[in-house]
Amino acid sequence: MDVPLFKERISRLRERLREKGVDCIWIVQPENRRYLSGFRATDLQLTESSGSLLINEHDSLLLTDSRYTEEASREAVGFAVKTIQNGIVKGLAGLLPDLGTRRLGFEKDYVTWGIHQELEKTLGELSPPVELVPLDGIVEEMREVKDADEIAALQASADLLSAVMGEIIDFLEPGLTERAVAWKVEELAREGGAEDLAFPSIVASGPNSALPHAVPTDRRLEQGDAVVLDLGVKLNGYCSDMTRTVFLGTPSPVLKKIYRTVREAQAAAIREIRPGLETTFVDGIARNFIKKAGFGDHFGHGLGHGVGLATHEGPRLGPRKPAVLKEGMVVTVEPGIYLPGEGGVRLEEMVLLTAGGARILTRDSHFYDW
Amino acid sequence: MDVPLFKERISRLRERLREKGVDCIWIVQPENRRYLSGFRATDLQLTESSGSLLINEHDSLLLTDSRYTEEASREAVGFAVKTIQNGIVKGLAGLLPDLGTRRLGFEKDYVTWGIHQELEKTLGELSPPVELVPLDGIVEEMREVKDADEIAALQASADLLSAVMGEIIDFLEPGLTERAVAWKVEELAREGGAEDLAFPSIVASGPNSALPHAVPTDRRLEQGDAVVLDLGVKLNGYCSDMTRTVFLGTPSPVLKKIYRTVREAQAAAIREIRPGLETTFVDGIARNFIKKAGFGDHFGHGLGHGVGLATHEGPRLGPRKPAVLKEGMVVTVEPGIYLPGEGGVRLEEMVLLTAGGARILTRDSHFYDW
Repeated sequence: MDVPLFKERISRLRERLREKGVDCIWIVQPENRRYLSGFRATDLQLTESSGSLLINEHDSLLLTDSRYTEEASREAVGFAVKTIQNGIVKGLAGLLPDLGTRRLGFEKDYVTWGIHQELEKTLGELSPPVELVPLDGIVEEMREVKDADEIAALQASADLLSAVMGEIIDFLEPGLTERAVAWKVEELAREGGAEDLAFPSIVASGPNSALPHAVPTDRRLEQGDAVVLDLGVKLNGYCSDMTRTVFLGTPSPVLKKIYRTVREAQAAAIREIRPGLETTFVDGIARNFIKKAGFGDHFGHGLGHGVGLATHEGPRLGPRKPAVLKEGMVVTVEPGIYLPGEGGVRLEEMVLLTAGGARILTRDSHFYDW
Repeated sequence: MDVPLFKERISRLRERLREKGVDCIWIVQPENRRYLSGFRATDLQLTESSGSLLINEHDSLLLTDSRYTEEASREAVGFAVKTIQNGIVKGLAGLLPDLGTRRLGFEKDYVTWGIHQELEKTLGELSPPVELVPLDGIVEEMREVKDADEIAALQASADLLSAVMGEIIDFLEPGLTERAVAWKVEELAREGGAEDLAFPSIVASGPNSALPHAVPTDRRLEQGDAVVLDLGVKLNGYCSDMTRTVFLGTPSPVLKKIYRTVREAQAAAIREIRPGLETTFVDGIARNFIKKAGFGDHFGHGLGHGVGLATHEGPRLGPRKPAVLKEGMVVTVEPGIYLPGEGGVRLEEMVLLTAGGARILTRDSHFYDW
């Protein structure tokens, strides 16, 4: 475990806490927890947390219960592990006075109303009382720009995914069900060392390929089908995400046309994307291309999203909410065209924003040159 | 899909809403959503919901976005599917006035502080305004008692798990890593038709068997090891959960002793458990047995928990918080003794509470008769 790396993250976080005027932050979101501490456990259910962090100017504590004490002590870098007995509310109430906390920041989109309610009451009765301050995406924002270790981890995850994609494309044949293909993906990913899939695989064939978010069904692949394969693996905590559209036999002229359009729209966006541009501008490059080709009504989602410890993180590349792209961000570029009843095409790469432009992290050459 | 079943659930829910004095409820928790509607989608992340329900005295609506409209329309029984465009807060604000809602119940342990904050503001500005009322476990409580369809689904899930358990025990041999065994479990479960594991498998060998919540490692199984296998599968949405402890070769005398103790403690609890008893009383049967045998300090978790659409649900069987057991509940009975450094033993069955007592749903005869 790279100790200086975690120290540097904590010190950047402390700067943000000073800016926000809180003297301590309570972190419950699992990827934020891992990013700051190195503690790898996942949460079984929303209501079954494996731990949380308390970080102020001088201290870094990891609060967990006895099931996770040993793992946390082994994995968390520079954190004092505290085993709590009677739930998180009493645990916090016991620790915060010793830390001298007066204003405690919390993650407003991850703490439930119920826990907040209990905490507000209990912490308000302390003397001096502790005030709860909602914070919005502080750690998520830090996570948007990847450091060298994260880039290496994302490249390794993308390499494994690229290998799985190549194997699965060779494996496709008429008669297989979508579910059988999805299961093969999982098998290949796990045999390749992935601890998990990054998300449930999309294997969408024939008419199902027109559904951007299709769930694998018992439909059998047929000659002439478009098959959208949107796959992701998780390796050492880092996610990857990639899409290919494959045809079994020769597709119809309209499917050929949308394939060409999507591929050229994607190439144009990847050619242009670089630090300093706005997300909405890059989205617009692909969107306008697709619009000019006459399929503007059939590209209903954003162009891409950040990838890291989570499959979907900031920045989002869409037609709304402009944000400036920075060096070190890793984002997907994934235009698609979906014709209901007929079929759809999506192509997706993961790219790293470098000083001069972008480097594609996913590698696979199953393309058609119509 | 069994339509009367879902109608009956909704009508029981409506009764509870009247008791609670709310005229509409907003359901976001994924298992509650499935229980009431039949909509099977899962949520990719806490912040990426696949849908929610609005239920009042006359209407049942399923709110989702365009990615899930088709699946929701196919699966949700008796619900009108509404596709929302600009997020859930605007979606609710648009629908609630037409429903005549004045007091909207929400799940206090699943709605985040951030969403509640936005909703409170937006709904308070409607005319007439809509008041938000926190509700605690209404649907979770309904889910504790299983109906005939659920019992059949849980038996099917337990049957598949029992088969996987038998195969994996035969597969064990010195030299295999814990991770390789865990992966084999997943393979067998998926080949057997499971859509997923119910939870990450615990395969804890040698000294690791003393950690109740061990994560599979690269440790290789050795002759003389205790191996705790705590496994679960998910079949048609329903979870199962079962534990065996297996020895490679002849265990040490102390491991034999704790094995006998755990097995007898479990048998005593299963013999006694029946509707009408308190959860704490049943926990006490096993706990006192283990205490008398001299291992009272080494059984650090509760005796069991309900199982259904979630692996861990009500009722909890532990030394605190008494609740009365009812016919139709399905719970685990899983005492354990853990000796740090030496090894541990846990045995777990899923049982259905019947009028006269309990029926064991898990079936596997890999026991030792020392």
